Amino acid sequence: MNFCSHCGSRDIGLRVPEGDTLPRFVCSACGVIHYQNPQVVVGCLPEYENQVLLCRRAIEPRYGKWTLPAGFLENGESIATGAQRETIEEAGARVEVGDLYTVISLPYINQVYIMFRARLLDLDFGPGTESLEVRLFGEDEVPWEELAFRTITRTLRNYFLDRKRGAFPTHVSTLERRPPVRPELTAAA
Amino acid sequence: MNFCSHCGSRDIGLRVPEGDTLPRFVCSACGVIHYQNPQVVVGCLPEYENQVLLCRRAIEPRYGKWTLPAGFLENGESIATGAQRETIEEAGARVEVGDLYTVISLPYINQVYIMFRARLLDLDFGPGTESLEVRLFGEDEVPWEELAFRTITRTLRNYFLDRKRGAFPTHVSTLERRPPVRPELTAAA
Repeated sequence: MNFCSHCGSRDIGLRVPEGDTLPRFVCSACGVIHYQNPQVVVGCLPEYENQVLLCRRAIEPRYGKWTLPAGFLENGESIATGAQRETIEEAGARVEVGDLYTVISLPYINQVYIMFRARLLDLDFGPGTESLEVRLFGEDEVPWEELAFRTITRTLRNYFLDRKRGAFPTHVSTLERRPPVRPELTAAA
Repeated sequence: MNFCSHCGSRDIGLRVPEGDTLPRFVCSACGVIHYQNPQVVVGCLPEYENQVLLCRRAIEPRYGKWTLPAGFLENGESIATGAQRETIEEAGARVEVGDLYTVISLPYINQVYIMFRARLLDLDFGPGTESLEVRLFGEDEVPWEELAFRTITRTLRNYFLDRKRGAFPTHVSTLERRPPVRPELTAAA
């Protein structure tokens, strides 16, 4: 943030407003406080018989990696509506959104993932502009090493474990920044 | 948004960026797209024996009305951490955050409420700067007509019903804009 979006002044800086506890972008010219808060990512895990629907990303980050349909919640929509919209956009797939399944905080990138289970309504699906490929995977076919995000890995791992147990409680968790790999483990030696 | 916060240009307007489906604030000078997305409100329902902890608001909106401790999730925190922080800030109360309890979308004001059940750890609590008063209420003492927000009413109603049933599943729901009251019902006649 270089300029105040309200008055156009360049006289903007990070400071703790009176009565607040955290530094915010505050405009010294007009006094407006520009809050910045976490984003919500909504998506779902579409099930069809014993398979789950994954999309291969046609965009960065993680171009070419597999993911569940998910994306930023938009103004004016509920979390279930957002999950349904993302599934249509990325996978061309119609789903009945079911129970809330995983809620994962990612404080280091200011995101909260909210994933639902969902029932894929028919097999008439295919990649949207953000996907290279969309297909169904059985448990033993999931490309675990080629998944795009840790939130997706965690959601799918929970799912296949819960499926064996026959119960799908809501899982709430946090992912911290991945610790750097120790140099001796990455050395070419 | 009157000015581009990136380059300071006034040449900013709502249009659908290429490859997007929704209108965004786009700067014609530097090309930056300014996304606006829903906010997350996190909070909890602190329980102590058979009572729940409520705060009477010292700020607008709903000055003087009762609420559960809750507020905007901040960058850098998980939803459970945010709920705990809000409870300290508004009620001076230490809680052990428990299970996720209600998730309520408010698409008409671009918010998602995420409320946890929580165990109040001791009786050493008291109003923070945003509260006039903080106290414990038994079920028959809850000031239903003086609650600040529909999200709070819904969370408390669920809670007392679930307590009778002895099970507290996660409740996911949406609140739509309240329909206008029919004029004949508000007429002084």
